[in-house]
Amino acid sequence: MTSINSNYLNLQGSYLFSEIAKRRTKFIEENPQAEIISLGIGDVTRGLPDAVTKAMHAAIDELAAPGSFRGYGPEQGYDFLVNTIIENDYRARGVDIQSNEVFVSDGSKCDVGNIQEIFSQDAVVAVQDPVYPVYVDTNVMAGRSGPFNSDIGRYENIVYLDCTAENNFKPSLPDRKVDLIYLCYPNNPTGMTLTKDELKVWVDYARENNCLILFDSAYEAFITEADVPHSIYEVEGAREVAIEFRSFSKTAGFTGVRCAYTVVPRELRGFDKDGNTVFINDLWNRRHTTKFNGVSYVTQRGAEAIYSAQGKEQIRSLVDYYMTNAGIIRDGLRSLGLEVFGGVNAPYIWLKTPNGLDSWAFFDKLLSEANIVGTPGVGFGRSGQGYFRLTAFGSRENTEKAVERIRKLSL
Amino acid sequence: MTSINSNYLNLQGSYLFSEIAKRRTKFIEENPQAEIISLGIGDVTRGLPDAVTKAMHAAIDELAAPGSFRGYGPEQGYDFLVNTIIENDYRARGVDIQSNEVFVSDGSKCDVGNIQEIFSQDAVVAVQDPVYPVYVDTNVMAGRSGPFNSDIGRYENIVYLDCTAENNFKPSLPDRKVDLIYLCYPNNPTGMTLTKDELKVWVDYARENNCLILFDSAYEAFITEADVPHSIYEVEGAREVAIEFRSFSKTAGFTGVRCAYTVVPRELRGFDKDGNTVFINDLWNRRHTTKFNGVSYVTQRGAEAIYSAQGKEQIRSLVDYYMTNAGIIRDGLRSLGLEVFGGVNAPYIWLKTPNGLDSWAFFDKLLSEANIVGTPGVGFGRSGQGYFRLTAFGSRENTEKAVERIRKLSL
Repeated sequence: MTSINSNYLNLQGSYLFSEIAKRRTKFIEENPQAEIISLGIGDVTRGLPDAVTKAMHAAIDELAAPGSFRGYGPEQGYDFLVNTIIENDYRARGVDIQSNEVFVSDGSKCDVGNIQEIFSQDAVVAVQDPVYPVYVDTNVMAGRSGPFNSDIGRYENIVYLDCTAENNFKPSLPDRKVDLIYLCYPNNPTGMTLTKDELKVWVDYARENNCLILFDSAYEAFITEADVPHSIYEVEGAREVAIEFRSFSKTAGFTGVRCAYTVVPRELRGFDKDGNTVFINDLWNRRHTTKFNGVSYVTQRGAEAIYSAQGKEQIRSLVDYYMTNAGIIRDGLRSLGLEVFGGVNAPYIWLKTPNGLDSWAFFDKLLSEANIVGTPGVGFGRSGQGYFRLTAFGSRENTEKAVERIRKLSL
Repeated sequence: MTSINSNYLNLQGSYLFSEIAKRRTKFIEENPQAEIISLGIGDVTRGLPDAVTKAMHAAIDELAAPGSFRGYGPEQGYDFLVNTIIENDYRARGVDIQSNEVFVSDGSKCDVGNIQEIFSQDAVVAVQDPVYPVYVDTNVMAGRSGPFNSDIGRYENIVYLDCTAENNFKPSLPDRKVDLIYLCYPNNPTGMTLTKDELKVWVDYARENNCLILFDSAYEAFITEADVPHSIYEVEGAREVAIEFRSFSKTAGFTGVRCAYTVVPRELRGFDKDGNTVFINDLWNRRHTTKFNGVSYVTQRGAEAIYSAQGKEQIRSLVDYYMTNAGIIRDGLRSLGLEVFGGVNAPYIWLKTPNGLDSWAFFDKLLSEANIVGTPGVGFGRSGQGYFRLTAFGSRENTEKAVERIRKLSL
């Protein structure tokens, strides 16, 4: 027997979505006739855009013949994709990013999970609460969390930044020294955003306090309002303090195809145990090339096609489809007098559970009385208690049906 | 500025293949007419098998329509692939593996790089020397190596198991207590193998000494001799002490498509810091589901097709093609009086450099006088000094041409 990484034993229970699946399965077993509508897991449902599938088919044909076959590609991604990303997602918005600052990967979950490895084990981590569980769990595994304190429902060494209706889901700056701050905007799960001025407060704070912002921007494509920045690098000084994570999962239906990217500016510096300056980009490059072997060529060609004229149009229509769903849920629930947040710049609707029900009680009520599966807010952290997440990723028909069913509930 | 993981600073220089690329580029710049033949990096060159591309095309069509679209799949891989793997790679050889013991991933490099995370930071690691650099580098990053001792050309806390012509590349058992032993068979870079009886010595040792074998079997498809085991689980007792890594990269031309899998038997146990028993499978499952989001559906359908009747036949012909190349190199170099190893159960030929040249001197000679790029043995570790690796992954024409060019050298 070999000695294991005991930090893993600090992890709490199973992943949120396993518990949801369990309750759902049990309900279906007991109610086989029920027609369940799932607005729970944030997974897309529409088909891949035509421009993407065309490019993927062509890529497969290339790989079929020795003359055009490609084996290992650059771990950081092919130039054709990296340059297309830079041109469209950054240069077009006046942001200058170099090709050695972009790292293509097989998913943002991997990137936001792996990034912590390159930092010191005693780095202090701050997260928003409610929060995407991966930020926390990966730091627990690395030994940065300390034990879970069940009295307060939190890990002892993680700094939690509360996001509730009281502060309009905009967290206060940390009240103690932190090293790494995970920010997610547009936010999962609340669907809320920061304006450019509000984001600047965080960038300035990070510059003044020598900390690093890990900016998860997986839902960027869903932004509709003009004063919401699409990249943290639109904020002056962010290149000195921020790593940005982007994903094609929700933008282009890539949850089953797997492609994302991370931007690590050359300006980012850390220091080693002797106080010497180290470039963060070099560390991430070393990590990425040592432990990863690049994204499928077929997937990368598909991702490139998202940026073609056809691709952009098709993506726009995909996003519009989901955002119309978001509007239907948002307006429908508001008309019932519910307190509803998000759904304007994000595919998530975050609602205050009625009558002070706790998140799981509302989950059970929605499942048993309306046959709708959603996500209990408390699954994202203590501050999510009393909230509930619905996603706009269902079909139009199911989305409308779900709102109708909720309308008939006694809330 | 944030404090970084200072273990990264113990890493030595750049990755072997970067240095090769640098020297190659310099030579081409100075000799633009030279017609370079690359038998260096272990990357395949033939097209994807027809059965695979057909399945991938069909999978893309499925993803194009909302009715058949698939988003997130199980992080551990779809049942259709997991069950096919178990049936063909294990049950057909009399080895019983359960579906919750197989973890499909996007590459063995990732898996052999990530596996160390679930073990204690003070676990003692043993590796063969010469060795695939990823085993060592990922443990350096995790802080298990101690500093690099340039006097001896090795990390202080890593236990090296020498593999040279003197012991026919079969390492002795460790002479001190170790926790994790990386074994790679058929071996990269030497191309050598162990018989079932020889492998049993390691399994027995691990059982008696409470250590774990991390068995990298990425080149299993190239085995031709009957007494060479295809899986470590063919050896009695291995389920208690071994994790096995398999890859489709070299078997089926998947280096650019990305698919592999890892087997973690339920019998494997470790202990935590309080001495409690922990199932290794549970730890790896938690790691895999927290930091990874599954392999592309398109790729998984392609991998499944490898096991169809057509697929098996096409894979066999791919492997035969490369192994015929291996024979050409092996026989050709032997006829010149060179000492040559491997190339019988593996696509790698490992040769003793002539006239006591060191590995890099032979690299430069081969590049400048024969315009052939190979891999210096010392790049895989101190015991690789004076050796050189050639791969069988070139085209037939280039392989034959390379042997002819070497024939004309004064060695």
